[in-house]
Amino acid sequence: MNELKGACIIGQSGGPTAVINASALGVIRTALDSESITRVLGAAHGIKGVLEDRLYDMGQEDAAELDLLKYTPSSALGSCRYKLADPEQDDTDYKRILEIFKKYDVRYFFYNGGNDSMDTCNKISKYMQKVGYECRIMGVPKTIDNDLNGTDHCPGFASAAKFIATTCMEVHRDAHVYDTGMVTIIEIMGRHAGWLAGSAALATWAGYGPDLIYLPETDFNMDEFLADVKAVYEKTGKCMVAVSEGIHYADGTFVSEAKTSATDGFGHAQLGGLASMLAEIVKKETGAKVRGIELSLLQRCGSHVASQTDIDEAFMAGKTAVEAAVSGVTDKMVAFKCSRDNGAYKCEASLEPLDIVANFEKKVPREWINARGNGVEQPFIDYVLPLIQGETKAPKENALPRFAKLKKVLTIEM
Amino acid sequence: MNELKGACIIGQSGGPTAVINASALGVIRTALDSESITRVLGAAHGIKGVLEDRLYDMGQEDAAELDLLKYTPSSALGSCRYKLADPEQDDTDYKRILEIFKKYDVRYFFYNGGNDSMDTCNKISKYMQKVGYECRIMGVPKTIDNDLNGTDHCPGFASAAKFIATTCMEVHRDAHVYDTGMVTIIEIMGRHAGWLAGSAALATWAGYGPDLIYLPETDFNMDEFLADVKAVYEKTGKCMVAVSEGIHYADGTFVSEAKTSATDGFGHAQLGGLASMLAEIVKKETGAKVRGIELSLLQRCGSHVASQTDIDEAFMAGKTAVEAAVSGVTDKMVAFKCSRDNGAYKCEASLEPLDIVANFEKKVPREWINARGNGVEQPFIDYVLPLIQGETKAPKENALPRFAKLKKVLTIEM
Repeated sequence: MNELKGACIIGQSGGPTAVINASALGVIRTALDSESITRVLGAAHGIKGVLEDRLYDMGQEDAAELDLLKYTPSSALGSCRYKLADPEQDDTDYKRILEIFKKYDVRYFFYNGGNDSMDTCNKISKYMQKVGYECRIMGVPKTIDNDLNGTDHCPGFASAAKFIATTCMEVHRDAHVYDTGMVTIIEIMGRHAGWLAGSAALATWAGYGPDLIYLPETDFNMDEFLADVKAVYEKTGKCMVAVSEGIHYADGTFVSEAKTSATDGFGHAQLGGLASMLAEIVKKETGAKVRGIELSLLQRCGSHVASQTDIDEAFMAGKTAVEAAVSGVTDKMVAFKCSRDNGAYKCEASLEPLDIVANFEKKVPREWINARGNGVEQPFIDYVLPLIQGETKAPKENALPRFAKLKKVLTIEM
Repeated sequence: MNELKGACIIGQSGGPTAVINASALGVIRTALDSESITRVLGAAHGIKGVLEDRLYDMGQEDAAELDLLKYTPSSALGSCRYKLADPEQDDTDYKRILEIFKKYDVRYFFYNGGNDSMDTCNKISKYMQKVGYECRIMGVPKTIDNDLNGTDHCPGFASAAKFIATTCMEVHRDAHVYDTGMVTIIEIMGRHAGWLAGSAALATWAGYGPDLIYLPETDFNMDEFLADVKAVYEKTGKCMVAVSEGIHYADGTFVSEAKTSATDGFGHAQLGGLASMLAEIVKKETGAKVRGIELSLLQRCGSHVASQTDIDEAFMAGKTAVEAAVSGVTDKMVAFKCSRDNGAYKCEASLEPLDIVANFEKKVPREWINARGNGVEQPFIDYVLPLIQGETKAPKENALPRFAKLKKVLTIEM
């Protein structure tokens, strides 16, 4: 046991999720309770808050409000998309971070984010080792995209998947009330990985969901797509389609950006996005009534329908990061190792080197996608289903969400 | 007591809601239990199912599945937008309806819908009286638009309002994570009445919601709108706006359809709708990052976050319709009379003549909207808040909604 006393900083980075604050709470609560950690500081807007010396003293927060972070969506401390330079080329930021770490005697740094955040952790960790400043640095994963390497899944993904599946079921019912033809196209987030779009298949599995699902793991072919939609439409009078925002042609061009012959005349597609563009094309080709629906931000912040499994695992990820760091671990990301034997789901935290996570996007295995590339197979369902279980215990006030109200006392103002 | 024995028909019409099936269940369950009603028939796709002799025998349904209708969104029997002709000009449909009523000895007709459905009820009722066929006809209201005259509010509205408020709160949190500028524009249903758009103010009231709300009850002025957005944006770096899809200029032109100088160059606005169009304009005028979000069908079918008050009242409306009809009442719509004295909400069913409902759209009182026309006042909140109370008791299976699975046995196939 290598005891290290000092302050800690927790920062959040990248796009928010429904449960990223549950992870932050896991860090903050465990750190506040730790005897090794003398002070818990929250960075305003991630690493930018460190660079700008904008740090909140989390010890000043009311404990009950803090606990509400478990059910508050989005990044409560604020987020950023700031990318640190390569320290070999420009170490300005690193010097500044070291200065701030020394100022507050920071010996623990927890960063809550996706691929880029793990890269940030890795760079800071290497720099601190180089200059001989003892500091334990841990990554706490989050991303609705579920594309981090080295972990069974990422906190945030399951709640978004649950929102998507629930919404697809409801929209499916809505789109089937008239005895007139109707095609519905639902656009789902996920630029490079189809985990979220694939989750729409949970709705189909439950009885009411998309007939066709297109992921970015396979090349999109407009002619095949139109043929698939027409076939379902002609047979049933309806067709429901889920598309990942990241679907692309064989040459890598995103469908949302492409100006193919089929999209000619719809040059303002950026106005409405992919779903609207595909809706226009399908309308033109089939004559059907078509509605394009973009789930937009709703899918990543829909905490009212979050998975309690996801919330609890997100909290556990934060807690594990602190416990591991206090016990001497550094330079790791908390990951999940899961088993699903005979339907019994078990999830345990593990610690993975930061660099196996960085610069690699985990995609849906090709064999989990059907041969035609317009749906997912049972292994995908078996993978996702345990993750969405459990109704959120999020408290309400006047039947509306009761989010955490933090005081956010800046250290420089104290 | 004027006892009338015979079959009943229940039909659903117009756009679906999260609770329209709760009303249908109120009718079906009460009718199945009634000694006066000999058979309960569900019309496939509203009045079209009557005209086409496509009627489901509801007595064949499993009782437990039927009960799930209370928590199943959209119109389980199918809906239509079929408008009956003026019987003075063309009585073909009425003769056919009479024929079907006679065929099944239908003595009770319950129609579950909005303005047009009440008009349909009224016309059928008058025709049956004219030809001397004894039949009791009752309207059961539904509409997320909340624009029916003669009732405090309409079943379906509150659940949509709750979805909108909850979603606005979550999106507000999401839109505030970065320390960079951001304008969010949320498009909400309601072509002629602003009840739904106004409900976004519940989010603001609860701490996280739109800064500006535009309803169709006032004329929209693009210059004032841009000035309002800029003022908020310049002060706070963010601005969240809720707009009704029905906002229009002083000359009555819908903003979504207008080609003003401000929208020139965005001629394909139909691709993305109003939110995308306004987002483009605001982006151009302010230079801010702007995101347009259309709540689309999600707001009217979002049963997972429905108001249990709404669900229970919707059921009560259906039940009341049957009880009143059996006791001798005809030619009425079930309405709600509510009191909100000192925060104590009470709702009782009343019976209103069908013709006070038809052809009049109840709008948000001007005095509930602020002078500038960019927000609502406290009386609006006081009106809506009691309606959204109560968490839905909707059952789940595998953490996903468990909707009613009906057998839908057609009488002509029996």
